[in-house]
Amino acid sequence: MKKARIKALLVDKENNSPVVLVEIENSTKVIPIWIGAFEAWAMAMAIENIEFPRPLTHDLLVNCIESLHGKFEKVVIHSIRDNTYFASLYVVDNDGNEIEIDSRPSDAIVLSLKRDIPLYVANKVISESGIDLTIEAPSENEEDKRFRNFVKQLDIEQFREMMKHRESKGNEPDDTED
Amino acid sequence: MKKARIKALLVDKENNSPVVLVEIENSTKVIPIWIGAFEAWAMAMAIENIEFPRPLTHDLLVNCIESLHGKFEKVVIHSIRDNTYFASLYVVDNDGNEIEIDSRPSDAIVLSLKRDIPLYVANKVISESGIDLTIEAPSENEEDKRFRNFVKQLDIEQFREMMKHRESKGNEPDDTED
Repeated sequence: MKKARIKALLVDKENNSPVVLVEIENSTKVIPIWIGAFEAWAMAMAIENIEFPRPLTHDLLVNCIESLHGKFEKVVIHSIRDNTYFASLYVVDNDGNEIEIDSRPSDAIVLSLKRDIPLYVANKVISESGIDLTIEAPSENEEDKRFRNFVKQLDIEQFREMMKHRESKGNEPDDTED
Repeated sequence: MKKARIKALLVDKENNSPVVLVEIENSTKVIPIWIGAFEAWAMAMAIENIEFPRPLTHDLLVNCIESLHGKFEKVVIHSIRDNTYFASLYVVDNDGNEIEIDSRPSDAIVLSLKRDIPLYVANKVISESGIDLTIEAPSENEEDKRFRNFVKQLDIEQFREMMKHRESKGNEPDDTED
């Protein structure tokens, strides 16, 4: 099991689907996870630290767990089957018992971003799905190479800073409904 | 405070926004609540009792609360301010303490549908926002009247039955991503 962090949130142009890149710490590998549009939006809001006047669904989830005296421990992306990643959210209850809760990786990652919960990826997931950004694929053309170099340079902290800068200029996000 | 139930989930044609109609029991009144597109989708899936292979965000929420020995007690739509409705989710913890958690009505309603949690609306919300389906509005034209009669006849159980029938014919819903 290796520690990981979110490297970037992109859109896969082939199918217009959002994909989150999970970077394995102290390695040159990333895991790409395709996620739904709503989950991508919730993740972007969490990455940008945007606060809404009303609790979003993941905020409600955090508030429920903390109201019931649960403590977030870690998030683990533990396996992949038929192109679907599986994750677990680990919470410690009031009596100190560790509870494992089945989750889609997207929800688990949104929570990990909201509460700085450590994120881990199982070794078998890394060996099966990890993409090494320093290794050129055999079929790689110039555009692939440019994309690989672009991905290598991505940094979520830069993205956060960029967003903060944009917000401070007064471009506020739209509000939620309800 | 009056008991309520979901009467229907519609789309407001004026702004293409989903709206959930909350019916006050033993009355002819409904409360219309405009909600976001994702929340409407999650609500439709809960109304139709559709199960997905992986837990959706509200399923994760239910699993987290129940894993931490919380018991759902009730959902209350307690106020409205600047056209925004406010709700609370009441959960009883392991020691029998009642915990009130701030929620958007849409999330609270999805949870109430998933676990048959009693839903209530505060009297002041009913008097401020309740629409009496038996009373003709002064400006009502023929189309308004037809729409009012259509809304009067809506029934979520019929909708459920219709969906069950459609599913048994093999029209399965799309799967989620991740």
